[in-house]
Amino acid sequence: MDGVKAIFEPQRVVIIGSSKIQEKVGMTSPQLFKSVIYNMRKIFHGKTCILDVDGKTGYNKLSKLPKIPELAVIILPPKQSIEQAKKCAKKGVKALVLITGGYNDEQRQQLLKIKEKYGIRVLGPNTIMGVMNTANGLNTTFERNVMPRKGNIAVTSQSGGVGACLLDWACFYNIGISKFTFVGDKIDVDDVDLLRYYGNDRDTTVICLYMEGIRNGRKFIEEARKIVKKKPILALKGGVTQESAKRARSHTASIAGSDQIFDAAFKKAGIIRVENIEELMNAAIALSKQPPMSGDNVAIVSNVGGPAILAADAVARNNLTLASLSEETKRKIESLYPGVDATNPIDIIADAKAERYSKVLQLVLADKNVNGVLIINMLKSCFFEPEDARVIPETAAKYPEKPVVDVPAGGEDFALVYKVLGDTSIPLYNLPEKAVKVLKVLRAYGKIVKKH
Amino acid sequence: MDGVKAIFEPQRVVIIGSSKIQEKVGMTSPQLFKSVIYNMRKIFHGKTCILDVDGKTGYNKLSKLPKIPELAVIILPPKQSIEQAKKCAKKGVKALVLITGGYNDEQRQQLLKIKEKYGIRVLGPNTIMGVMNTANGLNTTFERNVMPRKGNIAVTSQSGGVGACLLDWACFYNIGISKFTFVGDKIDVDDVDLLRYYGNDRDTTVICLYMEGIRNGRKFIEEARKIVKKKPILALKGGVTQESAKRARSHTASIAGSDQIFDAAFKKAGIIRVENIEELMNAAIALSKQPPMSGDNVAIVSNVGGPAILAADAVARNNLTLASLSEETKRKIESLYPGVDATNPIDIIADAKAERYSKVLQLVLADKNVNGVLIINMLKSCFFEPEDARVIPETAAKYPEKPVVDVPAGGEDFALVYKVLGDTSIPLYNLPEKAVKVLKVLRAYGKIVKKH
Repeated sequence: MDGVKAIFEPQRVVIIGSSKIQEKVGMTSPQLFKSVIYNMRKIFHGKTCILDVDGKTGYNKLSKLPKIPELAVIILPPKQSIEQAKKCAKKGVKALVLITGGYNDEQRQQLLKIKEKYGIRVLGPNTIMGVMNTANGLNTTFERNVMPRKGNIAVTSQSGGVGACLLDWACFYNIGISKFTFVGDKIDVDDVDLLRYYGNDRDTTVICLYMEGIRNGRKFIEEARKIVKKKPILALKGGVTQESAKRARSHTASIAGSDQIFDAAFKKAGIIRVENIEELMNAAIALSKQPPMSGDNVAIVSNVGGPAILAADAVARNNLTLASLSEETKRKIESLYPGVDATNPIDIIADAKAERYSKVLQLVLADKNVNGVLIINMLKSCFFEPEDARVIPETAAKYPEKPVVDVPAGGEDFALVYKVLGDTSIPLYNLPEKAVKVLKVLRAYGKIVKKH
Repeated sequence: MDGVKAIFEPQRVVIIGSSKIQEKVGMTSPQLFKSVIYNMRKIFHGKTCILDVDGKTGYNKLSKLPKIPELAVIILPPKQSIEQAKKCAKKGVKALVLITGGYNDEQRQQLLKIKEKYGIRVLGPNTIMGVMNTANGLNTTFERNVMPRKGNIAVTSQSGGVGACLLDWACFYNIGISKFTFVGDKIDVDDVDLLRYYGNDRDTTVICLYMEGIRNGRKFIEEARKIVKKKPILALKGGVTQESAKRARSHTASIAGSDQIFDAAFKKAGIIRVENIEELMNAAIALSKQPPMSGDNVAIVSNVGGPAILAADAVARNNLTLASLSEETKRKIESLYPGVDATNPIDIIADAKAERYSKVLQLVLADKNVNGVLIINMLKSCFFEPEDARVIPETAAKYPEKPVVDVPAGGEDFALVYKVLGDTSIPLYNLPEKAVKVLKVLRAYGKIVKKH
């Protein structure tokens, strides 16, 4: 089995830790060791063995294991981790996930030597949470019972903290995830390896990256260019200013590189850049559910005036265009609903329910001047009820080449409509501005697919 | 009683509607009438009378009311509303709230004549939801059981939809509100009247405006300049592009004015402009809980590296500065916690709990190079537990002149820490970028207070 594949799809895993060592400042502790064991035993479909270097639980030597596993997860201080890494490599383990950080340069070199001598692949060190694969239940994190639901979005994070935040976000908002990787210091397995693996992974249709720095820019761009033809790649870059870049260097030992260089590289690679964690997840959801947008023209259909105006403002700010509806479309809408002015953004008035939404959406989607639709359906101050929202995916399904996103603006309104539409193909956002940013990403991917 | 005051603080209110009329497209309906009555009867501390023009419930003529109320809330189509408005004015009612829209120019003129002849003040038409006062339970909205908790933030919305979204947001996220006004078409009572009222309202310490257009710019600026000395004013402007501004004109019959003109006016007035509904509410919460920031220097204290780097990026993007900690502060932190590098952003490492947060925060706040602090305390991938967060308001209280904001980044992490800190003086945000935007607003208000 290929080393990178062994990180995600092992049949057997050994968790190596200590029931005794508790670092003063650091991540090695008996509790953490226990938690990783708990997660793996609970949900991993394969076989999990335990190696306690202090011999209280499970095996106390690798040589005593009944069968050599493909993957070893090591939760020990640097010195002890390296000792174990060497033993694993000698025994024929294919890959290592190194949880803890705090390695000095010499220790990194020792790890690289082991890798070179034995061909074992190393994820980390400093991955903090390691890897997750929702398909086979692999979960090397120490957070108990934190596993996102199965889905098509793969995530790679260079930072444990950003990764943990993305993971928490995915679980809390019920976002479907295929693979989740905390790459840490990337001394061996890096973005290129992971892109290649995600690119071939049948469970993955969208790839999300949080990165602070990169080692092999040319290869990364090459690999990404190949993948974006079939799967979109989104990137959030940390360390964009000189000061924070310096910090990123000490954080994950990577050369952050200037922000402009990254911008150019992302463009060349066909990678879409986003500005924060919420935008990353929002865009990933849209890309996993909706087609790319083939032109700039957005129609807005809303049961309230003000939020539709804010959406129109956002359309302009994001360099998209407010679609000019054809005279025919306008005439049809206005003859069906006297009192409605069918100029885009179309205010179909506060008493609109399922029937009016369905008919207007159908007419707007049929208009050749429209490339994508943003729907706003508020409950407060309106007659719309959550069940009325069911017509949106039904109607949108008739025009599979045009993206439709929905905005039940607000707090409770969003939560109530989410209960009805959350599992459908329609992505939902709690503010019009967030939905427009997502349409901008769908448009960007439309251009990338055409170009690459 | 002054007419504007009568809108918010009446002793007696009459709700005028119909148990029969149901508009085909519009907001007059027996259900809506019933819902407004339900809300008023349930929570208004004063006396509520019902006038049903079709005579099924309550009184059927104004003259039959036992005592003339100060305020009349009218939920009828334009023609019937005007008839009732005239009767109210003649009887000495001080103010009207007109819920429904759809008035033509002639009808607006008729309303204005009534106002001029009798001195009655008119809020609306097209207010959709009317007014709320959390102090006396006045609630003219037709959403049942939607009333935010008592607090110090006053809101004015020119749009029913944006107002409803803000209201829903405030209720869902438990934001404390003093007054809530849906101004609609502003044919009489306008932003200047409301600013003046909010400016004198003892329950209000922060004022939020959603506006599409303005009638009397000079007076508005004058009034705002007086108020911002003691209370910050935040504004969200809809209709910033030519197309959406045109739409805003037809939406609330207001002259939207060019975006640049508004920008200049807001600056002159000392009003802080925000970009969307979430930013408006986030900034209002911070201003209601924390002092303005007296300089640009932000310190970041975090138990995770990546999110701290994203916060540092956001500091630079928002034209704030990453504070340079004094050598003494650094030395003290590093000698207390070997392994911690006390360069700002300070990563106090994933195993930090209450004690480490408290000591580091105390040292950072004591540093004269620091004007404000952004704390990040993630739970996932860390040892921090929600109860550890209690030390943050305790420590921050020792330095009341320096703002402190907290970021339990993510979904569930945010919700868990919110349970502990939600009612304290520390504002909470789910992403570092949102917290930095809020610090930017606190800094802007610091400059305004100094200047005005």
